Amino acid sequence: MRVFIVVGHKATTSPDFSLEDIPGTSGRLDILCRCINAAFVLSHGIRKDVNIFLVHCGGTEPKTITLKGSEIKHLNPDERTTAALLKKALEIPATNAWSRSTPGIYVRKSGLAELLQEIKDVRIIYMREDGVDIRTIDLQTDAGIFLLGDHLGFTQEEDDEIRQFNHEIISVSPMSLHADHCIVIINNELDRLKRDNSPL
Amino acid sequence: MRVFIVVGHKATTSPDFSLEDIPGTSGRLDILCRCINAAFVLSHGIRKDVNIFLVHCGGTEPKTITLKGSEIKHLNPDERTTAALLKKALEIPATNAWSRSTPGIYVRKSGLAELLQEIKDVRIIYMREDGVDIRTIDLQTDAGIFLLGDHLGFTQEEDDEIRQFNHEIISVSPMSLHADHCIVIINNELDRLKRDNSPL
Repeated sequence: MRVFIVVGHKATTSPDFSLEDIPGTSGRLDILCRCINAAFVLSHGIRKDVNIFLVHCGGTEPKTITLKGSEIKHLNPDERTTAALLKKALEIPATNAWSRSTPGIYVRKSGLAELLQEIKDVRIIYMREDGVDIRTIDLQTDAGIFLLGDHLGFTQEEDDEIRQFNHEIISVSPMSLHADHCIVIINNELDRLKRDNSPL
Repeated sequence: MRVFIVVGHKATTSPDFSLEDIPGTSGRLDILCRCINAAFVLSHGIRKDVNIFLVHCGGTEPKTITLKGSEIKHLNPDERTTAALLKKALEIPATNAWSRSTPGIYVRKSGLAELLQEIKDVRIIYMREDGVDIRTIDLQTDAGIFLLGDHLGFTQEEDDEIRQFNHEIISVSPMSLHADHCIVIINNELDRLKRDNSPL
């Protein structure tokens, strides 16, 4: 299983945004939509072995939406229909437990801190520009959770918190890339590893 | 200079599509929009050293739109505003010569055949799933033009034509990826090469 966490620092927790102007009305939900595309979309299908957690911090209290590749339906590659799925997830009353909005998509109240506590026994692959090159590390298939920031990176407080857990700081590029491009590259590294490890 | 060519087999040559339903009304112009994002967009800027040619075959006669990173302005990462730029380019009367629609964006009548004739002295890096792994070839910076298909790949006629030119058949992944994801990975390979070749 491949797991990605993306923190949207301004990403709205309300469904009251416009699909006609996603970047301008939703706290850059377009970034998260592109991360969903990068995580799941193949040329003729969806990656079943991927889960993504999207932490929406643009509200009075955060919400987290998760998409599970093994269950998801109706996922198209374009931004607008993906944003419409997130809108549906934000419409349902969120509690501290996961509530299902559409197949494979769940939402709850809570932010990054809660998620980190829940995954504390798993290696966090903390994506930062100043990290070690992903090609130089032992990247065992399915051996970590990839944590990425949006256009705002991470706050000092978040950074301090993440570093308390079992983590490695990793980079995928000499350039400063958007989170979705990082996910494409991570998927490529893992696809290559999976091929190389295949007995066939 | 990095150059990408993407063939949109159904991509409309008319501006009469809806920004509210890009995939459904434009012959999958959303695919080309994502290729533009993948080619140009960095975390805090635009790649100046990239050009892209988008061949729109979804009309009575094809049009080609080119975007030049060194000149382009107003390029945002989201699909809708990129589609609006393509709409503007498709609105102006196209001739056999390049006409500028907005800064860095030009359009003309003509399709893949004309483009191939014009670049016939340049190595074409022909992206196909059955290609040689990009990591195993001598990928000199700026030494080729990357040619990619959309969700329909290439027709037999196009394939025959491409193979008449100086070309290498290359793949970036063991999986079947969308063109925009391929471009992200190609940019990553070239970024790494540029870093490794840097004297600093």
